[in-house]
Amino acid sequence: MLQIKTDPDSALSLSEQIYRSICQEIEAGNLAPGERLPSRRELADDLHVSTTTVETVYDHLIEEGVCESRPRSGLYVAAEPILPATQAKDTPEVRWDFSIGAMDAAQFPYSVWAKLMRLVLSEQSDELLMTGDPQGNARLRGEIARVLYRLRGIETNPDQIVLAAGTDMLVAILITLIGRERLFAVEDPGYARARRILIAGGARIVPVPLRQGAIDVRELYQTGAGAVYVTPGRQFPTGQEMPEDRRTSLMRWARETGAYILEDDYEGEFSLTPDALPPLASRPDAGRVIYLNTFARTLAPGLRISYMILPESLRERYRELYSACSVPGFEQATLQKFMEGGYYERHIRRMRTLYKERRGYLADEVERLGLGRPQTSSAGLFELLEVESPLSSGRLMELAARAGVRLSALSDYSILPGKEESSGTFLLGLAGMDKDRIREGLEALQKAWFPRTGEKNGGRE
Amino acid sequence: MLQIKTDPDSALSLSEQIYRSICQEIEAGNLAPGERLPSRRELADDLHVSTTTVETVYDHLIEEGVCESRPRSGLYVAAEPILPATQAKDTPEVRWDFSIGAMDAAQFPYSVWAKLMRLVLSEQSDELLMTGDPQGNARLRGEIARVLYRLRGIETNPDQIVLAAGTDMLVAILITLIGRERLFAVEDPGYARARRILIAGGARIVPVPLRQGAIDVRELYQTGAGAVYVTPGRQFPTGQEMPEDRRTSLMRWARETGAYILEDDYEGEFSLTPDALPPLASRPDAGRVIYLNTFARTLAPGLRISYMILPESLRERYRELYSACSVPGFEQATLQKFMEGGYYERHIRRMRTLYKERRGYLADEVERLGLGRPQTSSAGLFELLEVESPLSSGRLMELAARAGVRLSALSDYSILPGKEESSGTFLLGLAGMDKDRIREGLEALQKAWFPRTGEKNGGRE
Repeated sequence: MLQIKTDPDSALSLSEQIYRSICQEIEAGNLAPGERLPSRRELADDLHVSTTTVETVYDHLIEEGVCESRPRSGLYVAAEPILPATQAKDTPEVRWDFSIGAMDAAQFPYSVWAKLMRLVLSEQSDELLMTGDPQGNARLRGEIARVLYRLRGIETNPDQIVLAAGTDMLVAILITLIGRERLFAVEDPGYARARRILIAGGARIVPVPLRQGAIDVRELYQTGAGAVYVTPGRQFPTGQEMPEDRRTSLMRWARETGAYILEDDYEGEFSLTPDALPPLASRPDAGRVIYLNTFARTLAPGLRISYMILPESLRERYRELYSACSVPGFEQATLQKFMEGGYYERHIRRMRTLYKERRGYLADEVERLGLGRPQTSSAGLFELLEVESPLSSGRLMELAARAGVRLSALSDYSILPGKEESSGTFLLGLAGMDKDRIREGLEALQKAWFPRTGEKNGGRE
Repeated sequence: MLQIKTDPDSALSLSEQIYRSICQEIEAGNLAPGERLPSRRELADDLHVSTTTVETVYDHLIEEGVCESRPRSGLYVAAEPILPATQAKDTPEVRWDFSIGAMDAAQFPYSVWAKLMRLVLSEQSDELLMTGDPQGNARLRGEIARVLYRLRGIETNPDQIVLAAGTDMLVAILITLIGRERLFAVEDPGYARARRILIAGGARIVPVPLRQGAIDVRELYQTGAGAVYVTPGRQFPTGQEMPEDRRTSLMRWARETGAYILEDDYEGEFSLTPDALPPLASRPDAGRVIYLNTFARTLAPGLRISYMILPESLRERYRELYSACSVPGFEQATLQKFMEGGYYERHIRRMRTLYKERRGYLADEVERLGLGRPQTSSAGLFELLEVESPLSSGRLMELAARAGVRLSALSDYSILPGKEESSGTFLLGLAGMDKDRIREGLEALQKAWFPRTGEKNGGRE
């Protein structure tokens, strides 16, 4: 006899409570794999609920792989039931990190960085201890301007550059410069962290859907937004480049409405194809473009160094409001020497090759393991993987987490309701692991998601 | 004949335009020292303005030391006219820095710091490169908690501590945690920078006057504020400690209204008197107190490390909103070793002695030079100086700046109209210079402010 408890005061729906109870019964061993569940009618009578409610529960159990339906016979606990992780009971260790923010510490040019920081320390310059220029040290800004021109074709005056301790902080600063009275449009799906910082910073945001992979400018006109946060180089998270005609429309929108375009050029340094479009900020009419970039992806997130290029009026406002740059003097001076010595560009070149290899390798392995369709691209530090599975996106995430694999689902980045919810498309970050670890992680995913089609050593642990 | 130009479209008032024209005439040499100005009547007729307007101008010229009135004779250009600096024409170099944020780099424990950072770099720990704990590295927070107990009597769980790149950033974060729907009360006069960050962060602020040197809690009740930013240890900028009864009222206010107290304990480590009151955060009923402090004053502003102690509910909200700490991994690890090695407390002890000596020396020199009344205190990194001069506070500041002395006026920190405007009270920061430089700076001030009573080498340059 099934022990099913329901609580009228629970925040959970009745069907959710019944679903969880059945899973708990299986977990406790009171319902064994292969055992038959009561019929819909029986259970509905037992629990004094409608058959529709039981119907919902049973559909959910099948959908999630907990039970299987046998034609003309009824519902049975699956041979290998896939049970939902009970809340925070066991949060398994992350063994393979495919997350977007991951970093492969082995690739950081540690010895050069340490050598240069030692040099900085030995100079014992008093300036390093002071608050310094509120925009960041001028020589470092000069280096950034030089590299921006060489790697991204952006011509900028170092006076327009502002450094801050991370992109979150740049966004928080921008709200104060642009003003909370303006509405901030964001891509949907889009960069969730920027969205969170905008909301926390008191900005009102409006999600704008994508059309053919890029922000829908017609919709943007209708929002009345005074600023938009976009990722033209590689839309995050869908990975597509904004086409030329959309860029033209977007620039026209900014000009006509007096709005600002916040261009997040994350990973722009790794765009490899010779026909990649240059950033909006490199255009002659870029007066309303605020370019944002970070050293978190090209060097290390732990350094906490991001920067932006401000139009003159906002730069003046910045200097009125802010009297200190949030990046420490030592870090600024070390990065300056790192760039002056040419180490930065060398590092970028090396990483471009490395990421290209990893991308190719990942695509091959995904195919070999039959994990799904990789949507390979020619740039970037993550790939999209479209998984064909009857399980929901949330359930696949849960199975991955239990197998020690961290990754993110495309659906995590959407606000507006859409087809993404059930799409089963995932983002696989490439920056955190070398080839061997990538292979291991993919194999673990395969075992978790397709336990019966595994290799001879396959099957769930 | 005077060349006085007025412009009806100018943003300046008519009297201000006439005043500036006369100063320019003197500067250009068209009006020599000792020369007589037209009578009020004559000038009013010439310029087709009222005699009241000219009256205002002439009063201003006398007040500011540009002209002198000779009884029954008229207005004459002063023998040594004190001309207002023409806008940004000459911004003289700062030679003596008495500003509040100044720092004496010679006091920074450079060799130990460099040694420890080299150690950190040699360990090549991968963790330093990652984003790490959003509140900051746990071992460093443990050290901060330990030192807080030893130096400030505050018992706190390291889990409640959050690090950020500067106090500005802490304040910006707090707005997002506490919420913009709450009104933020600030002391008036008070810490202008916190006020600016609150406003930039979209918080609504309400200035609350001081009563007997500390925030007026009766007024605070009337504001309906949901948070207050206070400096109980040493009110900034008036330098007074908040008395016990006011502390009790303030805590009661927070309890009764459900408001938060943001306790900025800047320079608290340097409070020397054994009878100094402990911080509000050390009280048993400190559940609504958010304690803020910084390493900018105890170590160096260029390090960009501040921290706060959050009540549990705000800490949870912090972890929902923020996924990264803005202080770089290398800095955190170095500071951790610096504290673990006992270097931090040793440095504080050494600086306490040093600042005590400087305070005594400054008071003696102020007296010797007849600069005014120093309002000496037993703590802190700045002293107040009350200057007796017929010149306005603004004019004295201008003269100081021209002599190469940077300092700030008490009136700079007020919002509400009050007597401070004309008080001629200044803040002299002690952290930036050694005794010799302090003496030189005070001598320069004396020459600038009291040119005729100077020493034998005195007089204006």
